[in-house]
Amino acid sequence: MLLLLRRCRRLTAGLSPAQAQRARPAASPAPSWCGVGGGSRSSSGGGEDRQTAQDPRWRPALAGLLVGTGAVLAYGLHHHKAERPLAPMEPALPVFSQAEVSKHGSLEAGVWVTFRGGVYDITDFVAMHPGGDKILLAAGGALEPFWALYAVHSQDHVLDILSEYKVGELDPEDQARQRAVEPSDPYSGDPQRHPVLRVNSAKPFNGEPPPELLGDSYITPSAIFFKRNHLPVPRVDPASYRLRVEGLPRPLSLSLADLKSRFPKHTVTATLQCAGNRRSEMNAVKQVKGLNWGIAAISNATWSGALLRDVLREGGWGPEAAAAAAAAAGRGARHVQFEGLDADASGTTYGASIPLNKALSEEGDVLLAYQMNGEDLPADHGYPLRVVVPGTVGARNVKWLGKVIVSREESASHWQQNDYKGFSPGTDWDTVDFKSAPAIQELPVQSAITQPADGAVLERDADGEVTVRGYAWSGGGREVVRVDVSLDGGKTWQVARLREGEEQGEEQGEAPPPPPLPGRAWAWKLWEVVAPLPPGEQQVEIVCKAVDNSYNMQPDSVAPIWNLRGVLSNAWHRVRVTVRED
Amino acid sequence: MLLLLRRCRRLTAGLSPAQAQRARPAASPAPSWCGVGGGSRSSSGGGEDRQTAQDPRWRPALAGLLVGTGAVLAYGLHHHKAERPLAPMEPALPVFSQAEVSKHGSLEAGVWVTFRGGVYDITDFVAMHPGGDKILLAAGGALEPFWALYAVHSQDHVLDILSEYKVGELDPEDQARQRAVEPSDPYSGDPQRHPVLRVNSAKPFNGEPPPELLGDSYITPSAIFFKRNHLPVPRVDPASYRLRVEGLPRPLSLSLADLKSRFPKHTVTATLQCAGNRRSEMNAVKQVKGLNWGIAAISNATWSGALLRDVLREGGWGPEAAAAAAAAAGRGARHVQFEGLDADASGTTYGASIPLNKALSEEGDVLLAYQMNGEDLPADHGYPLRVVVPGTVGARNVKWLGKVIVSREESASHWQQNDYKGFSPGTDWDTVDFKSAPAIQELPVQSAITQPADGAVLERDADGEVTVRGYAWSGGGREVVRVDVSLDGGKTWQVARLREGEEQGEEQGEAPPPPPLPGRAWAWKLWEVVAPLPPGEQQVEIVCKAVDNSYNMQPDSVAPIWNLRGVLSNAWHRVRVTVRED
Repeated sequence: MLLLLRRCRRLTAGLSPAQAQRARPAASPAPSWCGVGGGSRSSSGGGEDRQTAQDPRWRPALAGLLVGTGAVLAYGLHHHKAERPLAPMEPALPVFSQAEVSKHGSLEAGVWVTFRGGVYDITDFVAMHPGGDKILLAAGGALEPFWALYAVHSQDHVLDILSEYKVGELDPEDQARQRAVEPSDPYSGDPQRHPVLRVNSAKPFNGEPPPELLGDSYITPSAIFFKRNHLPVPRVDPASYRLRVEGLPRPLSLSLADLKSRFPKHTVTATLQCAGNRRSEMNAVKQVKGLNWGIAAISNATWSGALLRDVLREGGWGPEAAAAAAAAAGRGARHVQFEGLDADASGTTYGASIPLNKALSEEGDVLLAYQMNGEDLPADHGYPLRVVVPGTVGARNVKWLGKVIVSREESASHWQQNDYKGFSPGTDWDTVDFKSAPAIQELPVQSAITQPADGAVLERDADGEVTVRGYAWSGGGREVVRVDVSLDGGKTWQVARLREGEEQGEEQGEAPPPPPLPGRAWAWKLWEVVAPLPPGEQQVEIVCKAVDNSYNMQPDSVAPIWNLRGVLSNAWHRVRVTVRED
Repeated sequence: MLLLLRRCRRLTAGLSPAQAQRARPAASPAPSWCGVGGGSRSSSGGGEDRQTAQDPRWRPALAGLLVGTGAVLAYGLHHHKAERPLAPMEPALPVFSQAEVSKHGSLEAGVWVTFRGGVYDITDFVAMHPGGDKILLAAGGALEPFWALYAVHSQDHVLDILSEYKVGELDPEDQARQRAVEPSDPYSGDPQRHPVLRVNSAKPFNGEPPPELLGDSYITPSAIFFKRNHLPVPRVDPASYRLRVEGLPRPLSLSLADLKSRFPKHTVTATLQCAGNRRSEMNAVKQVKGLNWGIAAISNATWSGALLRDVLREGGWGPEAAAAAAAAAGRGARHVQFEGLDADASGTTYGASIPLNKALSEEGDVLLAYQMNGEDLPADHGYPLRVVVPGTVGARNVKWLGKVIVSREESASHWQQNDYKGFSPGTDWDTVDFKSAPAIQELPVQSAITQPADGAVLERDADGEVTVRGYAWSGGGREVVRVDVSLDGGKTWQVARLREGEEQGEEQGEAPPPPPLPGRAWAWKLWEVVAPLPPGEQQVEIVCKAVDNSYNMQPDSVAPIWNLRGVLSNAWHRVRVTVRED
């Protein structure tokens, strides 16, 4: 109970005094604020619990959540937390002018917004808003431009929530004026994508290639390389583009030409993987919050650019600066932050950070990359410049890079602080404390079967063999040293052949990849087993698991690594196939 | 089949022409050499197959095995490979003089040895000998001094094997002379050990502390720190001791005083773990070859000494040497070899190597340590000098260090090449190819429950709670960030409290350990859960699993990580307790 009270205090701490007062009626017993004790539970028609947001008890527990992907979580959370049935709608509501709405532009004056001709007093919802204070940017105005940016709002239950706050109708003349200035779709500048990609989210765009294509090509062609955007793709003019580098003895402002001419060009073949790769398998155990990735939110490419290490040294981060930082004993720089040029309506950009020692290490190979697979970066992959942090989760490989900051603290961004972290399977949205887990950097060992597909029907032909192919990779530069494959659900295992040398690129006539340097195995390995199908079996479960050179192995099953965000899904991969006798 | 033939050729390649001829009768069909095709199988009374070693077919497959721990493997292998019942003993055997025996001192002349008054012609066994050619050192003489050194021979089935080769009796007068010169026990110089240690092998000494002691003390007292020796403890005179450092622009010869005065003293708290820790759990699945360690072949200590990096720089391994090595493109130095002063009867010393980049890294913290827990190294832990390679398997932390060699190749020692490697559960002694797996360096994430003990009986008292404690650690400097504990066999999980700060050393009044630097979390974490016992249950299975900051997790179960050497046993740890109602 003590722990619980401490949690409540912590969560309330971020609110302004006015908010805190609203959020904390003196008569309300402490435990109920955190949603653990008290409260009756009833169910609405839709089969999901619901609660009017005026109920103050949930606000503190929600105030910590922020924008972006987090939004989808917390709208789910609203549902999850709901305890009262939807209040009946008022039969007749007053009409307000835009001028009257505009007066309600702060927590003190109340927060009103308009949406599709309705007027809403969302004052009590502010503290619950998954996107945090950002909602105040809409205060006194229209919601439409914000919802256009965050497509997560385009869900029926979000409208249901909003409807609870309706207080009136907007004057029809003001409605007409509003329509005239409605912004265009912020995603209208996004590039065309290859139709073969499976789209997990259109705005922002998130798509993955078909697994059978992925597993056939050591280097993933840029067009089918998985795409994971958090915001609209920004249009960047390469001529006026400048990279700003801060937190150094000599801050830098570098043009593309500077980056290409003043620093040696360094090329690295590196696999990028989204933290949410294979999330669908966690969903199959118990629903998580996040994009429903299959096994192909991972791809491998060749990246070229300047070494971040070289750029930091140009800015004066030599041995002396390092020594000074070390002498500062805990007060020195420990992180390198990256800010993207992709931004939301408020101007907040995508951001992330990595440990400074990774950036400075001779063996870190962190790139400020301007090329992918030998060509300029495609728009979806960060044109004109992105960070490539080999061995590190995709989320830290910031695209459309605008700024690099050497700093004492990690990035304060939502994606660094309140997303992309792993938790125990026993941790739920009531108990999660994002501060308790480290931001994902290196990813654990991973592998998956790209062929045959789950559910495939195989003909048992004369030789009775099946060809199983897949990929395997591990974070932190740890080389995959073995892949075990089972054709009987994991009871017996055989060792797959790692497709090295010219084979890896056989379909494209590429040069064979060189063997990785020790501790710098940034690229995946493709593998293959050709083995007899178990005789007489019509249902065969094929399983794979990889081992890296620290001898870490994939865990056996999904449930014990399940986590509420569905990240780090790296249990043995299983596909079930049906064998038809010829 | 092609692969098989290639394997046979490779294995035969190490033999001398004479050996190869013996090993390869022209009439024998190729497949049978590798023991895959042909051959009838029959069983002797003891329930294990047996084969007279005169049968040449097994020799090539065995010739690659070497001395030390390997011996126990290959004596098992002899059993395993046997296909013919024991030949009946000759009723009367001739008597030979030592002079006659001495004539048989080579493969050409035949290899005879004596043992306890018997004379044995072991010519045909030489190629099968697990210890390799080393057996020739005994040719024409007595086996006793060798068997005294390698206690692995003190097994009934080894005597059974020897009996197959008996050709006569030694002249009683020569027997008397032999007894007069029998060497003393090479282990007689070993130090006294604390009686609390559980002894897994007396000669060489291998022992582990009781788990409940281990889990109660952040720093393991030196006396109960697990001890893993491969050979007798050498007696080293600190005054005349010199460390030789080779493979550098300026080779070094350093006295203890040099090491203490010419290099800054560096202190690191680091956990060492034997690759075979928790091997007993693999034995429970299927018998493996190796010492039957429980969960306590792991301990944590504070080590002080010179940084290996500083010593290598003193020898001229500066940025220039590194650049030259890099320019040598694959022909440059990649490894640092360590040779111990512990040696067998032939003078072969214990040896191992680590990657050069680990040794040179500013963040590698590799020590030439002369102190453990603030005092001179104890004899069992390498007095006067040992290597401490934080984050790396115990086997590379060479004790009684005699020589350091910067080299292009890994150590050629048995322990680097043909031991301390991991294999697929499907790989057995017939199919194993030690060249196919990398030498273990960094270890995978690990944790175990030190309290309560497996099989404990707990009283359910008034509060109905149980206290569960344990350790957690990961290799490569990866910090343990979470330990999950289950009281229902792994169905549901709660997060353990990592016992940080002053708690860690509470039993000893030590100062709290500082938080680890990023990537340099060399020390374990102790953890604790106090939780209600499941109501009504009389049999409770407690399980733990750890997660490190690369988010690697322990695999669920032992069978899928089982390997023929029983190393890398890091599945979830389970203890079963009985709850008695009060």
